[in-house]
Amino acid sequence: MHKDEQIFTSQLDTDFYKFPMAQIQFKDFRETKVKWRLKNRTKGINLANIIPETELREQLDEARKIHFTGTELRYLRGIEVYSTPMFSEDFLEFLKNYRLPEYNLERVDGEWNLEFEGKWCETSLWEIPALTIISELYSRNITKHYSGFEVERMYAEGVERFARKKEILRLHPGITFSDFGTRRRAFKDWHEKIVVFCKEELLKQFLGTSNVHLAMKHDLIPIGTSAHEMFMAMAGIMYKSYKPIHETEEYADSEEVIRASHNVTLENWWRHYGWGLSIALTDTYSSRFAFETMPESIARDWKGFRQDSGNPFEYGQWVIDFCKKHGVDPKEKLVIFSDGLDVVKICDLYRIFEGKFKMSFGLGTNLTNDIRGVRPISLVIKLVEACGRGTVKLSDNIAKAIGKPEDIEKFKKIFGYNQNFREECIY
Amino acid sequence: MHKDEQIFTSQLDTDFYKFPMAQIQFKDFRETKVKWRLKNRTKGINLANIIPETELREQLDEARKIHFTGTELRYLRGIEVYSTPMFSEDFLEFLKNYRLPEYNLERVDGEWNLEFEGKWCETSLWEIPALTIISELYSRNITKHYSGFEVERMYAEGVERFARKKEILRLHPGITFSDFGTRRRAFKDWHEKIVVFCKEELLKQFLGTSNVHLAMKHDLIPIGTSAHEMFMAMAGIMYKSYKPIHETEEYADSEEVIRASHNVTLENWWRHYGWGLSIALTDTYSSRFAFETMPESIARDWKGFRQDSGNPFEYGQWVIDFCKKHGVDPKEKLVIFSDGLDVVKICDLYRIFEGKFKMSFGLGTNLTNDIRGVRPISLVIKLVEACGRGTVKLSDNIAKAIGKPEDIEKFKKIFGYNQNFREECIY
Repeated sequence: MHKDEQIFTSQLDTDFYKFPMAQIQFKDFRETKVKWRLKNRTKGINLANIIPETELREQLDEARKIHFTGTELRYLRGIEVYSTPMFSEDFLEFLKNYRLPEYNLERVDGEWNLEFEGKWCETSLWEIPALTIISELYSRNITKHYSGFEVERMYAEGVERFARKKEILRLHPGITFSDFGTRRRAFKDWHEKIVVFCKEELLKQFLGTSNVHLAMKHDLIPIGTSAHEMFMAMAGIMYKSYKPIHETEEYADSEEVIRASHNVTLENWWRHYGWGLSIALTDTYSSRFAFETMPESIARDWKGFRQDSGNPFEYGQWVIDFCKKHGVDPKEKLVIFSDGLDVVKICDLYRIFEGKFKMSFGLGTNLTNDIRGVRPISLVIKLVEACGRGTVKLSDNIAKAIGKPEDIEKFKKIFGYNQNFREECIY
Repeated sequence: MHKDEQIFTSQLDTDFYKFPMAQIQFKDFRETKVKWRLKNRTKGINLANIIPETELREQLDEARKIHFTGTELRYLRGIEVYSTPMFSEDFLEFLKNYRLPEYNLERVDGEWNLEFEGKWCETSLWEIPALTIISELYSRNITKHYSGFEVERMYAEGVERFARKKEILRLHPGITFSDFGTRRRAFKDWHEKIVVFCKEELLKQFLGTSNVHLAMKHDLIPIGTSAHEMFMAMAGIMYKSYKPIHETEEYADSEEVIRASHNVTLENWWRHYGWGLSIALTDTYSSRFAFETMPESIARDWKGFRQDSGNPFEYGQWVIDFCKKHGVDPKEKLVIFSDGLDVVKICDLYRIFEGKFKMSFGLGTNLTNDIRGVRPISLVIKLVEACGRGTVKLSDNIAKAIGKPEDIEKFKKIFGYNQNFREECIY
C-alpha cells in the first residue's frame, strides 16, 4: 500500500472478460448508447464520507491518461487459450487509440453517484478500473492512521488467513479455482502478492487470474468469459429495434422480444467465440427461466454454465436436470461457481457435486480482500440504461436485482420470476 | 552486475531475427543437420585463460533449463510489426517444448572451443545465449577484483560516454537507430540500462531493440530481419540435394548450384515473410556478387538492404547503382548499416547519403559495451557445417571470412571474389 500512488496504471489491470465483451460491443453495437452507475450494496457504509472527492477525482482523471502499450496489445493479440485469433485487428486498433471516456461524479446522501454515459464499447471498460480505484481508496482511507506496525500486522494476518485457505483447499486436490478478485481487492499490491502466493503454493489447483496484467506479468492464464451486461443491454437493443405493426400489439409483443433477447445474446456469443468461451451465465433474468428456455444446442455444444447468484446447491441440480432433459451427460459439462465464495463453501459444493459434473471456482473478495481491519464492501458498477431504456438484472437472489423498481416489476412479470431467495450481499 | 547470477533467464533474451529464421528452419529444413562454432576474433585475448570452465559450464547448463513462458509465446504470437500473423501455430508449439540442446566444450590453446551440433532449427537458438553468457563472464572476470567504488566508476564513465553519443546523435534528428548490442553487451543489467536511456533520451531517433525480452519489457519494437546463416546453410543444403547426371559434370554444375543458392535463399525468405522482413543481407559471398546477380524483383519489391562488412561508403554507391540498373528510385529504398558502427561513423554515413536513400543504423558493441575498464571482444558463433559440408562466409571484409581455408579458396573462385578490403574486427 502506497498512500498517494496512482492506482490504475495499465489498461490490462482489468478483468479479461471485458475484452471479448468489448469486441462484440465494438463489432456489432458500435453506436449503442448506454449508462452505467456505481452501486454500493453494503448498508451502513457511506463512501462519500470516507473517500474525499479530490482523491477520487484525481485517480479517475489519472486513469483516463492510461493507454494500451504496444507490448500489451501484442500480448492480447497472442492470447490463444480460448480461440486463435481471438481479437480482430480492427478491434485491436480501436484499443490502441482508446482512452477511458468522461465520467460524472456527484455526492448524493453520503454516497458517490458515479456514472458513465456514452457508447457501450467505450464506457464498458470503465467498470473494473473504477471499482479498483474506489475499493483501494476506501481501504487507504480506512487505514490511513495506521502506524507502520499496524500496516505490517494487517498484512501479516492476511498471510495467515491465506495459509488457512491454502490448507483447506489442499485437502481436496481435485478443486481448481481462479482469482476473480480484482474489483474488490483491498490493495493493488496485496492482490499481486495473493496471486503470487496462489501460483507458488497451489500451483496445480490455481488455474489463473481474471486480471490480465497479473496474468501477463506472472505467466498465468487470463481467465474469464462474459457478464450480465451482454444480456441486459440486448434487451434494450432489441426492444428499441422492435417495431409493432398495430398500435395495440406493442405491449404483448415487446414482452416477447425482451424474452427472446436472452437466447439471442447467447447465440451471438457463440457466433463470435464458439466453444472456447462457451460458459453460459444464466441468472440475468433468473436461471429458472434460462434453463427452461435455452435451446438444446446450449446443453449439447456449450462447455458449461456459470452460477453467480442464488442457491448454488439448487443450481447444480438445475444443471443436471437441464442436461438430462436434452439427453446430454452432465459429467461432460463444467459449472463455474463465482458467487460470494469462500473456501469452506467451495469444499461443500465440491463434495456435493463431485462426479456429477466438472467444476471450477472463481474466488473474489474473500481471496483478495481478507486482511485485518478492512471490512470489504459490496460494490458494483452496473448497466442501468441501454438505448435509452432502463436495464434490469433480476438474478437468482432478488437482493442483487438491478434496475428501477417499476422496471424490475415489469421484468419479473415478463420472465415469470417467482423465486424468493434473498440474501444480503456481504461481498 | 551481480557476480554469480544466472545470465540467461528468458528465451526472449535473444535477437529477434533468430525467430523468423528458426521458423524457416523448422518449416522447410526440419531435419537439416548443422554445426556451429565459437570464434574469438580478438587477437591477444585468450578466453580460456580468463573464464573458468566451471563458471562457463554452469551458465550453459542453467540456460538449458529455460523454457518459453506462456506470456512470452503470447507476446511472440502477437508481434504485428512485420506481418500478421508472423509465426505459425506449429512453430509456436515447437518453441513451447523447446530447450537449448547439448553443447560441446573443450579447451584448445587457451581458447574455449564451443560447438553446437544437431538440427539446424534446434541449434540455431544457441547463438545469442551462448554469446551473451561468454561476453558477460568475460566482463565479470575482467572486473572481479573491482571494489564497490571501481564498479560505480566503471558505470559512471559508461553514463558519460552515452551522454556524448546522445549529444552527437541529437545534432542529426533525421538519424534513426536500433540497439543491436545483445551479443556483445558488457553486462545484462547495463544493457537494459542503456536501452532505457535510449528510450528516454532519444525517443524519436531510437526505433527499438533487437532484444526481444527488452522490447517486451520496455514496450519497444523488436527489430531484426535475417543473418548469414540462411545463405551459408542453403549452399550446403542445395549442394547435398544436387545430383549430377554425368560423373564428369559434378564439379562445374555444383559450382552453379552453390552460386544459385544465394538467390534461392532470398526468394524463400520473401515467400515466407514478404515485404515486412524484406531487407536483403548481401555480403555472405560478397555484395559485389549479390548486386550483380540479384534479380530485378529484389530492387523493385524489397524494402532494402543491410550492410554488414566492407566499406559502407562504397556500399551505398552499389545500392544506388543496383537500383538504377533496374529502373528503381533508390530514394524509396532503405539501407541498414550494422557493421562495427559508432556514432561518428553513423553521422558520416548519414551526411554522405542523406537524400540518396533511406537509412537506419544498428548500433551494437559501441552502444552496450562502452564502459570503463572493459575492452570489448569480437566474438561470433558461426555456422561451420551444413549437411556435412563446410560452410563459408566471405563477406566484404576478408578478415571476417568464415570457413576452412580450402573452402574459402573454393568459394572465392565460385563467386569470383576479387575484393581486397581487409580490416581487423575491433568489435
